[in-house]
Amino acid sequence: MGRVVRGCPRVSAGLIAAYGELGVATVHEAQGRTGLMAPRLRPIYRPVRLAGSALTVELPPGDNWMLHVAIEQARPGDVVVATPTSPCSDGYFGELLATSMRAHGVSGLVIDAGVRDVAELTELRFPVWSAAVSAQGTVKETVANVQTPIVCAGARVEPGDLVLADDDGVVVVRRMEAEVVLAAARKREQAEARRRVQYAAGELGLDLSAMREGLSARGLVYEDHNA
Amino acid sequence: MGRVVRGCPRVSAGLIAAYGELGVATVHEAQGRTGLMAPRLRPIYRPVRLAGSALTVELPPGDNWMLHVAIEQARPGDVVVATPTSPCSDGYFGELLATSMRAHGVSGLVIDAGVRDVAELTELRFPVWSAAVSAQGTVKETVANVQTPIVCAGARVEPGDLVLADDDGVVVVRRMEAEVVLAAARKREQAEARRRVQYAAGELGLDLSAMREGLSARGLVYEDHNA
Amino acid sequence: MGRVVRGCPRVSAGLIAAYGELGVATVHEAQGRTGLMAPRLRPIYRPVRLAGSALTVELPPGDNWMLHVAIEQARPGDVVVATPTSPCSDGYFGELLATSMRAHGVSGLVIDAGVRDVAELTELRFPVWSAAVSAQGTVKETVANVQTPIVCAGARVEPGDLVLADDDGVVVVRRMEAEVVLAAARKREQAEARRRVQYAAGELGLDLSAMREGLSARGLVYEDHNA
Amino acid sequence: MGRVVRGCPRVSAGLIAAYGELGVATVHEAQGRTGLMAPRLRPIYRPVRLAGSALTVELPPGDNWMLHVAIEQARPGDVVVATPTSPCSDGYFGELLATSMRAHGVSGLVIDAGVRDVAELTELRFPVWSAAVSAQGTVKETVANVQTPIVCAGARVEPGDLVLADDDGVVVVRRMEAEVVLAAARKREQAEARRRVQYAAGELGLDLSAMREGLSARGLVYEDHNA
Amino acid sequence: MGRVVRGCPRVSAGLIAAYGELGVATVHEAQGRTGLMAPRLRPIYRPVRLAGSALTVELPPGDNWMLHVAIEQARPGDVVVATPTSPCSDGYFGELLATSMRAHGVSGLVIDAGVRDVAELTELRFPVWSAAVSAQGTVKETVANVQTPIVCAGARVEPGDLVLADDDGVVVVRRMEAEVVLAAARKREQAEARRRVQYAAGELGLDLSAMREGLSARGLVYEDHNA
Amino acid sequence: MGRVVRGCPRVSAGLIAAYGELGVATVHEAQGRTGLMAPRLRPIYRPVRLAGSALTVELPPGDNWMLHVAIEQARPGDVVVATPTSPCSDGYFGELLATSMRAHGVSGLVIDAGVRDVAELTELRFPVWSAAVSAQGTVKETVANVQTPIVCAGARVEPGDLVLADDDGVVVVRRMEAEVVLAAARKREQAEARRRVQYAAGELGLDLSAMREGLSARGLVYEDHNA
Repeated sequence: MGRVVRGCPRVSAGLIAAYGELGVATVHEAQGRTGLMAPRLRPIYRPVRLAGSALTVELPPGDNWMLHVAIEQARPGDVVVATPTSPCSDGYFGELLATSMRAHGVSGLVIDAGVRDVAELTELRFPVWSAAVSAQGTVKETVANVQTPIVCAGARVEPGDLVLADDDGVVVVRRMEAEVVLAAARKREQAEARRRVQYAAGELGLDLSAMREGLSARGLVYEDHNA
Repeated sequence: MGRVVRGCPRVSAGLIAAYGELGVATVHEAQGRTGLMAPRLRPIYRPVRLAGSALTVELPPGDNWMLHVAIEQARPGDVVVATPTSPCSDGYFGELLATSMRAHGVSGLVIDAGVRDVAELTELRFPVWSAAVSAQGTVKETVANVQTPIVCAGARVEPGDLVLADDDGVVVVRRMEAEVVLAAARKREQAEARRRVQYAAGELGLDLSAMREGLSARGLVYEDHNA
Repeated sequence: MGRVVRGCPRVSAGLIAAYGELGVATVHEAQGRTGLMAPRLRPIYRPVRLAGSALTVELPPGDNWMLHVAIEQARPGDVVVATPTSPCSDGYFGELLATSMRAHGVSGLVIDAGVRDVAELTELRFPVWSAAVSAQGTVKETVANVQTPIVCAGARVEPGDLVLADDDGVVVVRRMEAEVVLAAARKREQAEARRRVQYAAGELGLDLSAMREGLSARGLVYEDHNA
Repeated sequence: MGRVVRGCPRVSAGLIAAYGELGVATVHEAQGRTGLMAPRLRPIYRPVRLAGSALTVELPPGDNWMLHVAIEQARPGDVVVATPTSPCSDGYFGELLATSMRAHGVSGLVIDAGVRDVAELTELRFPVWSAAVSAQGTVKETVANVQTPIVCAGARVEPGDLVLADDDGVVVVRRMEAEVVLAAARKREQAEARRRVQYAAGELGLDLSAMREGLSARGLVYEDHNA
Repeated sequence: MGRVVRGCPRVSAGLIAAYGELGVATVHEAQGRTGLMAPRLRPIYRPVRLAGSALTVELPPGDNWMLHVAIEQARPGDVVVATPTSPCSDGYFGELLATSMRAHGVSGLVIDAGVRDVAELTELRFPVWSAAVSAQGTVKETVANVQTPIVCAGARVEPGDLVLADDDGVVVVRRMEAEVVLAAARKREQAEARRRVQYAAGELGLDLSAMREGLSARGLVYEDHNA
Repeated sequence: MGRVVRGCPRVSAGLIAAYGELGVATVHEAQGRTGLMAPRLRPIYRPVRLAGSALTVELPPGDNWMLHVAIEQARPGDVVVATPTSPCSDGYFGELLATSMRAHGVSGLVIDAGVRDVAELTELRFPVWSAAVSAQGTVKETVANVQTPIVCAGARVEPGDLVLADDDGVVVVRRMEAEVVLAAARKREQAEARRRVQYAAGELGLDLSAMREGLSARGLVYEDHNA
């Protein structure tokens, strides 16, 4: 009833480093507004940013056994991406598992469920994005899949996909598209830098992006107060 | 299908400054426990406090075009108050729009929807109260109203109303009532200061507000443990 | 319609001090994964930790009268544990009541409803766990019970129970079991300390807890990527 | 602290009858996609349809006193539209109040809170749209406003506005616009009837509304599976 | 880690029959507005009414083993009252377990979690109140308690308490208070019958309950429209 | 920015007919407790059952243009499975689109968003599973994908997958696995039929599935009340 797939491919350390300088919103835009996890996933401390290669885990409700199984599969640069097989807010993960993960090169956790020991995790600077904080303990009774494709917080994740997370949330980039999206994201960043200067100088998006005609065509009208 | 009303009246800079020293809870009480937005609106960083004159914006779901339109209407001291025309958690607003708004005198944003770039907005100290944080991008396709009366997070807001926001949430004061409410709020603050001293000295609300008789009349009885 | 039970027993100051060095997750585990309040209760600032003796209060919706009644019953070391008699997010409690509570020895508040003045409470370092932040004011019209057994955020609480709260949430320990649970929690802490060292050294839970056989028996299989 | 405005204008019986044959979605569209209450308001039985003149009521949390006050103000054709002054799911209304309302000409209730006795109300065929079903009782201690403008489930409602509700939800039409919107809604119904015939015959919206060019201009491309 | 308490007392068949003619709202009022479960518990079909003696069960998340254990403890007239040890929407119960329960005299189920086979359960007329409908299957791996005091949907339930459920929700009456509450509920029903006649005749609660003076004392004022 | 993939494969009419006699819970179990959509998807009327071949659609928030595009791709036996690209409760679909879909062979709709005209859809017996009912109208401005793999309510859906929905919810079966899962589901149904007879005769799951030893091994103990 449970499968562990060994030796899955990863995104390269170079790609991970490059993505580590980008924001989630930028990358999400650069790949056509796709790949975003639901906003219920929030970081346990802020500010924070993390990029890595997805190590996927399924978790039965109230059962964190597979996190132990996953750690053995970890390689430096991995981010564990864990999803419960049915909605669950229990605290699947805490400071002890973070210690174990860190020892095996895992740089952070994305989980559509609960975590605990958030004070200790914050002190350790072990980055976590979770759907809940809960001290509720879990059992170790039921097996599930590790390193198979999953859906986490509404986003499809395959083992080895690029995962990027920051204060805004979490986005996934297909491993084979990570180079192309990186280039697009950098281009977008440059355009945003130019736009930032223009906006700071008081120029309007209405003019810079030539919106006025389109607005008028859609029926936007201006009138004066009490006119 | 969309109207922009130009030249709406504002509350004065003096009033804005005066309200900037008051808390949301105090003002909400001072105007008879009205005008509060729903508690789903939370500041993106804390502590924070902001007063301003409402510049109202309607936003179609997943469409932030009208924020660009609104910026052109801004005057120093304005706070943009934006409401989606149907529930939406998308990230309508980020650091670029904040840069543009700030260049036009806007001092903050209240939005019953999502925002992104919260790390950058926090660094910029651009105050935002939102219902969600989401990197989800938006389009620019559909027009709506700017500077018309709206309902935002359950509260009616008219252009030029006084908006006050702090760590507790957001309250709206009708423009024409802002002077009267200010006076009432200051009076309330003074009463609270006196009460604070009494409470710190150990005096009880039961005595200070003569509650005992009322409690008894309503049927409150005292008994001893295991008696 | 309302009862106040005077002179309820408390957990000892020694026990409170001892629990103050433990975490919620540890204690929750040590007493068999029971006693946890629902994760909707969150601290208004972090990091924070608090142990105390429960002073229980029932609150009618939108009515905070009983908090005043409760303060008179307080003794040093008490934590007020308040539950609305029907779901309510109003701001029942703020800085003035905190001042009064502190003057009577109350060290913090756990409330399955809303609070306000969170900036001031944070500055005062008055610890609060609440289900909401809301400036919404309350009335003083209806009586209810103080120091009777209640259900708060899904957990049964009796007057004088040990309440422990930290960044992870809130747990309740029956007063008569507090000694036993304390011993179990300390033992658990020691075991965790040993495990922490092992995990940091790279040892796996799979081996340390001899999980491999059980996993296999439950049907976990390993395969190689693209094999 | 509470005001009752007597003698507010109503929409005419003729208008109420005319709206009673229209659907909420049609009217919402006909007035430019405005006036809709949040979808948390659901009918207690289905199918159901109701049109009437809004008799507005504010309700303190857990306090239904003002419903009694409102009944005295009722006239035949009125629909009571009630909103709590802070979020509340309590059962403000049941079969007894329905009996009293009906005796005074009230034809139904729209309430952004809870109701009870839903089996009896269903048998009586007294139409109710509510945000919750709850047996939780309420008190009669605090006054509020009757027949003043309110916000109910996100929509502004003024006394005497036209309220239309069916299985899809609740929409409000300003009293002064009710004639114009009625005409637009009827026109829309006729257009829909024509469209229904075309759709039933297999014609496509793509062709009937000439969408293909627009879709292509926006970047829609067609490809064959596995091509 | 799990206890089953055999031979717990029950409420009598006579009491169960007597309560079966009462409504949840009436009983909730008759015992001082206490004992109500949270309104998230809804019946899977309507109309429906059920009274019985509580057979309490704790359920680990995603694990329905204890329902099997509970059935052996059942006696005619029992209602199974089941609560997950942490929030869970999985489908713990379906038509097969209903068949088994019915064979052992269980007359219905109250569960603060999910159920499935609701079409079949509806056809069988096996009454169920649940927090969710979900086909999600569960495991049988972890033990928990049967026939011990629990908290279900916010209400304390002890084995053998009287449970009453209808279209409005679920209320619990302590076994030892069931006679007294029954008498109070019947008295209340009679008063309601009298009031129903008065209301149907057009008499106002304002007059029947002499509310006018109180309303005025609380500050309610009447004014005329446009006066 | 949008792709329509033509000529995607379907599951056969024979398979659709065969699945039409099975329940969602049974099929979900038969394929190893996978493929279930989140329980927020509920049928608009009950009882109802539907099997079909998935025709997948992405919907921008508040924009139903792609439903029109999808209809042209429909073949008899298709079920439209639609997911918004960000959370949205608007009423994307109503009676007119149902008429058009039915004319093109579509037998039902599964949508993780809102629908309207539910009274008319119920009368038409056009089966719909949705996350909300809302009259809120949508625009036709932005393109997206049709017949590409999507995530709907947490489940991965590929064009041509088998979709089965009933009163319990919605489950997806990979097209290539539909034969195997069908066989497993039928086998399960037979086992359930045998078990039903045993349960009806009063036999216990404890005995039929030999649970007693396992329960004891996990630490379940029996004690007598007040023993």
